[in-house]
Amino acid sequence: MPHIPLPEHLPGITGLLEYNKETAAPIRELTQFLLRGESTLTPGERELIATIVSHNNACKFCTAAHTAAADLLIGNTETCEIMKQDIDAAPVSDKMKALLKIAKQVQVLGKAVTKEAIADAKSHGATDIEIHDTVLIAALFCLYNRYVDGMATVAPSNPEFYQGLGQRLVDNGYNRLANGYDHLKHQQQQQQQ
Amino acid sequence: MPHIPLPEHLPGITGLLEYNKETAAPIRELTQFLLRGESTLTPGERELIATIVSHNNACKFCTAAHTAAADLLIGNTETCEIMKQDIDAAPVSDKMKALLKIAKQVQVLGKAVTKEAIADAKSHGATDIEIHDTVLIAALFCLYNRYVDGMATVAPSNPEFYQGLGQRLVDNGYNRLANGYDHLKHQQQQQQQ
Repeated sequence: MPHIPLPEHLPGITGLLEYNKETAAPIRELTQFLLRGESTLTPGERELIATIVSHNNACKFCTAAHTAAADLLIGNTETCEIMKQDIDAAPVSDKMKALLKIAKQVQVLGKAVTKEAIADAKSHGATDIEIHDTVLIAALFCLYNRYVDGMATVAPSNPEFYQGLGQRLVDNGYNRLANGYDHLKHQQQQQQQ
Repeated sequence: MPHIPLPEHLPGITGLLEYNKETAAPIRELTQFLLRGESTLTPGERELIATIVSHNNACKFCTAAHTAAADLLIGNTETCEIMKQDIDAAPVSDKMKALLKIAKQVQVLGKAVTKEAIADAKSHGATDIEIHDTVLIAALFCLYNRYVDGMATVAPSNPEFYQGLGQRLVDNGYNRLANGYDHLKHQQQQQQQ
């Protein structure tokens, strides 16, 4: 049960983003820009960064949601699962492996990022902006994971929920839609029938 | 030396906020709302939350900057120093002690926040919104600290720099001014003369 009353039909981050729309607006804007804005990293690659950080922060809701989004964007379910176990074994580019390792260091602490990891990324063609964005996406998910779990929000156990949410993140990104999260309520009502 | 080229006269977060204005805008907006917006917590109390998290993340730049801001807002330099060593010994209200302990748990991990810590805060009169804002401020500084140190930004060693920055955070908050950080360049030029 969440530490404060949140709408029951809105688990994880979704209830928090409805709880306070004034803090939600800049969080959504930052996420949309970093994960879906113009970039030489694909949306799928950026969802992998969100996934590895959420996984290492043991945030069940965020890990499942961004794994689902990454799976859809990349077109398979293996990449995320292999990456979570061993970045070097994941079927991604060498540049992406190096960036994912930086993200994993950011998850630990800012100071944990090594010159060697940065040099490795640069040697595989990572640009300054790609390194910047990787660090900031990883830092942003350290915020999200702590927000979601620090408030003890509910993480649904049914995989269908995350598949639906992942599809929504692929289709609509992170900006708030006019109808908010009504579809989740609808989805939940359907499951209860 | 930072991992990517940043303006030399803008250390710590200041150079990063100039490096990418599109990500800086929502970060500034969120911070201004959480630390200076309408709240039953004073700006000084909210700067204490920023300080304890930055201190525990070992982020030199953010700790010094927010300690300076908190000192000015609270009117003494003892509170921050005592808090960093022992929250219970700090000259703050019992409610604030409880909230600072929650912030310290958020710094570790979202899941580290205990029901007991939340119950303790509530028993000392903390409202749902105060608990929400404490968790989100703590999470936001987990982002900041990782961004600042993950990019290996420079942290000046002279205390005067942080006193100037702290005064600026008290006077102007977190919104970007029309003249940006020109005063820092000016300050640095004066020191070099």
